[in-house]
Amino acid sequence: MAVRKKKLINQRQTILRDMLAGFASAYPDVVRLTDDGLIVRARPKSAGKVGLVIGNGSGHEPAMIGLVGEGLFDVNVPGEIFTAPGPERIVAGIKAADYGAGVLLCVSHHAGDLMNAEIALELCQAEGIEPVEMVVLYDDISSAPKGNEPERRGTAGLFFVWKMLGAYAETGASLADCKRMAEAIRDNTRTLALALTSCASPITGETMFEMPDDEMEIGMGVHGEVGIGRHKVVSADETIDLMLPRLLEDLPFNTGDEVLVLLNNSGSMTLMELYILHRRVAERLAQAGIRHYKSWIGPYATTQEMAGFALSLCRVNARMKYLWDAPANGAFLKGV
Amino acid sequence: MAVRKKKLINQRQTILRDMLAGFASAYPDVVRLTDDGLIVRARPKSAGKVGLVIGNGSGHEPAMIGLVGEGLFDVNVPGEIFTAPGPERIVAGIKAADYGAGVLLCVSHHAGDLMNAEIALELCQAEGIEPVEMVVLYDDISSAPKGNEPERRGTAGLFFVWKMLGAYAETGASLADCKRMAEAIRDNTRTLALALTSCASPITGETMFEMPDDEMEIGMGVHGEVGIGRHKVVSADETIDLMLPRLLEDLPFNTGDEVLVLLNNSGSMTLMELYILHRRVAERLAQAGIRHYKSWIGPYATTQEMAGFALSLCRVNARMKYLWDAPANGAFLKGV
Repeated sequence: MAVRKKKLINQRQTILRDMLAGFASAYPDVVRLTDDGLIVRARPKSAGKVGLVIGNGSGHEPAMIGLVGEGLFDVNVPGEIFTAPGPERIVAGIKAADYGAGVLLCVSHHAGDLMNAEIALELCQAEGIEPVEMVVLYDDISSAPKGNEPERRGTAGLFFVWKMLGAYAETGASLADCKRMAEAIRDNTRTLALALTSCASPITGETMFEMPDDEMEIGMGVHGEVGIGRHKVVSADETIDLMLPRLLEDLPFNTGDEVLVLLNNSGSMTLMELYILHRRVAERLAQAGIRHYKSWIGPYATTQEMAGFALSLCRVNARMKYLWDAPANGAFLKGV
Repeated sequence: MAVRKKKLINQRQTILRDMLAGFASAYPDVVRLTDDGLIVRARPKSAGKVGLVIGNGSGHEPAMIGLVGEGLFDVNVPGEIFTAPGPERIVAGIKAADYGAGVLLCVSHHAGDLMNAEIALELCQAEGIEPVEMVVLYDDISSAPKGNEPERRGTAGLFFVWKMLGAYAETGASLADCKRMAEAIRDNTRTLALALTSCASPITGETMFEMPDDEMEIGMGVHGEVGIGRHKVVSADETIDLMLPRLLEDLPFNTGDEVLVLLNNSGSMTLMELYILHRRVAERLAQAGIRHYKSWIGPYATTQEMAGFALSLCRVNARMKYLWDAPANGAFLKGV
């Protein structure tokens, strides 16, 4: 088993505080840590543009603190490890992202995050903070069947939304248009994940789930939520052959489509393995007549030291490609 | 133990070939894989500029294939896993990087790499390929005492050289000046690493070294070479307090100096931990009156899924800061 219980922290109680202080100390030209624990852009957007906010449980770094910056999010509201931030903190985040053209609150679909976001929106209404809109995002095809897409979980593929929506808001697009763009990217995105090992919670020190040495799980969520099922470990090519057809069928992605590819490292996969996996993805896409625009391979949304990856595809048009290629300057995402 | 013996590959014999094909398939706008297994820039430098080449054993991804691109290396000669490429392949790399102003062959100091580089230079002389210069680079203070710097190993801190030398060669600097710049950056760089766990070799499937559950090793090399010694696992702050003073004394870094900081992820450290570690680094530098310019935190030179990190400092002047901030476009290093 590849679970690592020894971690270099100070105290369990101070993980979030220490991490945010350390993160902000590393990137003073990109982000600032506020007194109330928000990560905000070091250089605010110009007035009259839509502000973008997201809240999330921590423990998935670089998500989402590493995605705050020019051409990306304006404010991240980081919760405790694997815990959605409370509604009051989300309201504080919305206020910090208000440049006079409204604020779009992005929610990666998980029960706690959605509930707290809905309460935050009610608080904003009561306080007269407006306009504020919410967009709920999901991509994991293993968490609910086709036809029930809004019940699916938000996972690594949402990075397609973060990057392109961030670029879109910089163009001065309206709040309604930003929300529509986020939905359009979401509706063209599909993800399926795989885990080889579990990981240890930094809070409890305990293994998050059990995984036999010769098995892998297809479809696991970012907190170890159950997926499609266990499978004996097979080769890299066979793994992609198990996963990719499910993704292609789901949207479906068709001959002539053009796609972005994300191979997200859940924690301790080697890039060596991810590159080997990408070889088969590229080969299979070419065979299906699907054009490959660009790829991202690396740790964008992690679950501690879990060994695994998520394969995400996003069907893009000319406008999305423009947004994909637009400048960005976050701590973990620069000059795409 | 956090060693992971199950890895998603196809066959052990085809790891390098599959990995290079997959890497090139992901980044066609950045790199190209040649028929003889070199990774070269997709868009060559303009004629009359110095070409930069490096060879290295694979298994340390993104090093060095991810560092080929504009403002970085022109050619990487990737060897088999943990195995230096042979002299003939290095010569092929030198030929591929020749834009008419000479080629600088960079060598990260390890016995096999140095020997093969020296033979490659002799082959170039015999073939009349010139001018070609070699620069040997090292940074790991645990591998030889102060005063014997040229005996030290090359480790993660050499990324300071790669980034700034790459930018310098783009300015049209001469071969002699490029070599001097590489040496100057090297001579201002110091690294000390730490390992919490071992890893499994992707070739043999076996654990590379043994590490008790409650210990860590300070000063380990990128292939598990022995360091300063074992230590009981302590807190993040105490870990930095064990490591940073040794680095500061070695150069030495003094009050008023300005530094770049690298916290390189050896494989499966979480960014959560690395950010917590950085908090203490920033605090201690401030206390010592050393100015912090910018930081890099992430997986730049890995040893498979080993849990550990390297802390590197580089003292910079105005010219180096300019080179640090210059554009770059590699698969794993963009728009710094």
